[in-house]
Amino acid sequence: MIVLHEVGPRDGLQMEREVVPLDRKEAWVRRLMDAGVDVIQAGAFVHPEKVPQMADTDALFRRLAADQRSTAVLSGLALNEKGVERGLACGVELFCLGASASETHSRRNAGTGTDEATSRIITAARHAAAAGTRVQVSVQSAFGCGYEGPVPEDRVLAMARRYLDAGFRAISLADTAGHAHPAQVERMFGAVLGLAPDVECTCHFHDTYGLGMANIFAARRAGVTAFETSFAGLGGCPFTRVAAGNVATEDLVHALQREGLRMDVDLAGLVAVARDVAAFFGRPLPGHVHQTGPIPAGSAA
Amino acid sequence: MIVLHEVGPRDGLQMEREVVPLDRKEAWVRRLMDAGVDVIQAGAFVHPEKVPQMADTDALFRRLAADQRSTAVLSGLALNEKGVERGLACGVELFCLGASASETHSRRNAGTGTDEATSRIITAARHAAAAGTRVQVSVQSAFGCGYEGPVPEDRVLAMARRYLDAGFRAISLADTAGHAHPAQVERMFGAVLGLAPDVECTCHFHDTYGLGMANIFAARRAGVTAFETSFAGLGGCPFTRVAAGNVATEDLVHALQREGLRMDVDLAGLVAVARDVAAFFGRPLPGHVHQTGPIPAGSAA
Repeated sequence: MIVLHEVGPRDGLQMEREVVPLDRKEAWVRRLMDAGVDVIQAGAFVHPEKVPQMADTDALFRRLAADQRSTAVLSGLALNEKGVERGLACGVELFCLGASASETHSRRNAGTGTDEATSRIITAARHAAAAGTRVQVSVQSAFGCGYEGPVPEDRVLAMARRYLDAGFRAISLADTAGHAHPAQVERMFGAVLGLAPDVECTCHFHDTYGLGMANIFAARRAGVTAFETSFAGLGGCPFTRVAAGNVATEDLVHALQREGLRMDVDLAGLVAVARDVAAFFGRPLPGHVHQTGPIPAGSAA
Repeated sequence: MIVLHEVGPRDGLQMEREVVPLDRKEAWVRRLMDAGVDVIQAGAFVHPEKVPQMADTDALFRRLAADQRSTAVLSGLALNEKGVERGLACGVELFCLGASASETHSRRNAGTGTDEATSRIITAARHAAAAGTRVQVSVQSAFGCGYEGPVPEDRVLAMARRYLDAGFRAISLADTAGHAHPAQVERMFGAVLGLAPDVECTCHFHDTYGLGMANIFAARRAGVTAFETSFAGLGGCPFTRVAAGNVATEDLVHALQREGLRMDVDLAGLVAVARDVAAFFGRPLPGHVHQTGPIPAGSAA
């Protein structure tokens, strides 16, 4: 089983200066649903003045939840109980909550160190779970930090253990800085998957240094089956100013379909969305397949 | 042991409309030598009117061979005995010769089908070997073809067997179209490496669909230790018009150094060359690390 978790509407759009109008966001998410993506992170329940790109998240979820034609799960990012409350009020089906394994990154992003930030995330995650929604908890900067450099693996494993001890089983490791390399990825996910028999891992790789897709394949080797990716590869590392996005959703689906996997997903539909996103922002985006077009049908090897 | 084979001065530059002046080519190759790249494909012994970008190949080799400060091996591409003769006359140390496993690609590129093209390549390769130079023989379009689509794996293995039967041990599989995916790469190189105990494989991946680096890591898993890459990711698939280059040399070295491998290579030197190449052509090139800069020292994980 492979789970495709599209994070473009959140991780992609929140990095852009230009705010995408609500109607257009809604159209993109609906087309992603129609294409057969499993989970779509439609927005973030953060402060609307601090992150104006996400200010319409509640409105977007209300529209999507009110007229749900698809089986896609709507996920939303929250940082605290207040965010969870907002999400619960507008139809979030999966909450994504996380803290950074890097002390510096945590203090800059969450205003407190890793331990306290993890405690807060667990509190908010319990709140969401108590309301009956699904929860995914994540370790940010799990493979290195743009401020600190290396992040000790035992810090990451300690956070994963805290999440497990708190009763959560869906754990994401995010390569926020793009520092991960395949051997490290396989080792780390192997370690996390070994912590409990029923742990489920999701991976999230930024392609800052060109290793995003290689890291996805390394995660697959370790047994990871859920992948967070972004349309056209939009988004990416917050520590650098260069175009170095997420792994592109349509690039991953294209790759999987070369192996005969996830043939149910409408790749042409994903490519069309990615092209619209690139046209909207009016600059080349990092994904490949929305530029080249897929390898013609019949060319599977 | 890992062998870094820089093909930018040949595979990169021959795809460009603009012809790079000889002095600049020479400077780039010398800086690649200084940075510690093992093999540098400095040019192609092809018809100077058909491929004006390579017209100064003989002159470039003469300059480089005359004042060789480095231990880098100078490789040159040749298509036939005449090309080998030219290369022998100007100091080529390793000849790279290849034929396409795709019948259509072979007819368009070599003017004859795969079988006859392979015979010609073997004849030229024997000529080079008889003169005492090293030879690498390759299978082009080994993972799929931009004209034909899938290329049967037994065609590729049959070509590899012909090369082995003819006495050659250094075999390259080139993903000319960029169709390869990691599972296929691992399977195919495993098969070729299994044909003889002393076969040595080189891989060459185009990043057309975003799988270049993932394919390199898959090849490594199969036991491949020699990698053809291009500065700044220049070059790439001749079947599409979009920017979709080779895997970038400096991206690969950066990735290897994350594992503590090839720490002898001067990554900063490679990045500087890639930046010069990008500045010369005046457009964004596909490589990542020449844009982002390397992860700061001390951040190895």
